[in-house]
Amino acid sequence: MREGEGRPLADLSSYPFVTEVRVRFADTDAMGVAHHASYLVYLEVARVEYLRSLGHPYTDVRAAGLDFPVAELAIRYLRPLRFDDLARVGAVLGEVRAASFRMDYLLAVDGEPCASASTRHAVVGPTGRPTRTPDWLRRLAPG
Amino acid sequence: MREGEGRPLADLSSYPFVTEVRVRFADTDAMGVAHHASYLVYLEVARVEYLRSLGHPYTDVRAAGLDFPVAELAIRYLRPLRFDDLARVGAVLGEVRAASFRMDYLLAVDGEPCASASTRHAVVGPTGRPTRTPDWLRRLAPG
Amino acid sequence: MREGEGRPLADLSSYPFVTEVRVRFADTDAMGVAHHASYLVYLEVARVEYLRSLGHPYTDVRAAGLDFPVAELAIRYLRPLRFDDLARVGAVLGEVRAASFRMDYLLAVDGEPCASASTRHAVVGPTGRPTRTPDWLRRLAPG
Amino acid sequence: MREGEGRPLADLSSYPFVTEVRVRFADTDAMGVAHHASYLVYLEVARVEYLRSLGHPYTDVRAAGLDFPVAELAIRYLRPLRFDDLARVGAVLGEVRAASFRMDYLLAVDGEPCASASTRHAVVGPTGRPTRTPDWLRRLAPG
Repeated sequence: MREGEGRPLADLSSYPFVTEVRVRFADTDAMGVAHHASYLVYLEVARVEYLRSLGHPYTDVRAAGLDFPVAELAIRYLRPLRFDDLARVGAVLGEVRAASFRMDYLLAVDGEPCASASTRHAVVGPTGRPTRTPDWLRRLAPG
Repeated sequence: MREGEGRPLADLSSYPFVTEVRVRFADTDAMGVAHHASYLVYLEVARVEYLRSLGHPYTDVRAAGLDFPVAELAIRYLRPLRFDDLARVGAVLGEVRAASFRMDYLLAVDGEPCASASTRHAVVGPTGRPTRTPDWLRRLAPG
Repeated sequence: MREGEGRPLADLSSYPFVTEVRVRFADTDAMGVAHHASYLVYLEVARVEYLRSLGHPYTDVRAAGLDFPVAELAIRYLRPLRFDDLARVGAVLGEVRAASFRMDYLLAVDGEPCASASTRHAVVGPTGRPTRTPDWLRRLAPG
Repeated sequence: MREGEGRPLADLSSYPFVTEVRVRFADTDAMGVAHHASYLVYLEVARVEYLRSLGHPYTDVRAAGLDFPVAELAIRYLRPLRFDDLARVGAVLGEVRAASFRMDYLLAVDGEPCASASTRHAVVGPTGRPTRTPDWLRRLAPG
């Protein structure tokens, strides 16, 4: 998966959903900035809040016996995040397939893009087997 | 729980089990040293290896339907750990009760104590209910 | 340090400062609940927000050349936290000494205490040397 | 960056360097498998050990005033990792440019590929400014 898949590095105003994440001290590393693995957690927080905003909290998804494990991830780190930065994270649903879907993200601080990313998620049932993407998610597919 | 419960801050030679943990870059924070929460993971690594050395890997414990969640934890941070430090972690079983047990730990780098800690663990069954401490663990109880 | 140091396990209403932390999926472990090390990060978040509420954001503390590394920590885990739980974390300044101070915490979900904890912090300068507790912090000392 | 950049999903025998990483309990999440962000730390561990094997420990790199922050990362998750799995991580230096370089990785458990990944690293000096890739790294460039 190429990150963004051709999506222009847009500003946050082009995202249907934006949430805020504060950089924690625990997220930083000895370079004095947020460790690169911390960003994946910020994306996850945005994804969870995005699903909530769509009326499908991830707790409901899981209670229905589904999980959306990350199958692929691509991220570009554009500017470092520092302790206590208040990052805004935009998330948008990308292509939705029979048993997977993509999400795209942009993280920005004070209007400056700090990272752009894409995740592709499998849709799996209780035993980890691929399962049909739920209808509510298919209906949200762009285009 | 008072950390160590009166146990003198001994050197590693008084521990029946010692393992090594390398400080990862991801473990550090913007102070340039290992984040204080990272130490809990080092204790966990030592605990898991200690159980393995006792012939009871934690995967077997879990396969038998048991878990040993941390019920109490106390830790003293004595010296900072730095990226790439090779810490030696001593672990020893402390008091064993009907449905819980204690472990004590000492972390050292190059012979210098960096932290001492104690954890108290509940013994729980599949539903999270307190369960009888397994016999093999009771037999290992000191004194 | 004994956790709470005799402080009764009070409800959150007895804390001068309370903040909220959402349990992230990344915080959970294979027991299906928040990993015990995640709680230390929740305490840190509460501490950072508490300092901000006192007019002394930790970024200012650090910009002034100070750090408050954790020197001791004690925590009791009372009830598991689950993914997406919205925990309320109360924090209160405890004893303030010449070059260290204590903070006490209570985490609760839906009014049910989930953990109580205490941290003792050293006050250090740029080189990690113990330094005099700043006056603004001494003035906030209880009793 | 497309992960692997056309590199075939080879087996570990095609990697010049392979190290081992044990999946920790703290690395798992409520799906019962290693959280997807944990893999980034495994890649980092492999990278650090790979540099050490090349005679250039990352502590030396940093002591020389350099850092290799991750600028881009792509990863494909192929099979879940479980608690206590002993993962083998292969790492290989990819394209080396004037002020950046790429590394490719394969994680496998019991010979089964679990993830493949690529990271692109900037070479920066003490102030975070792009800096010339050190000669020893340029000499290691493939082809």
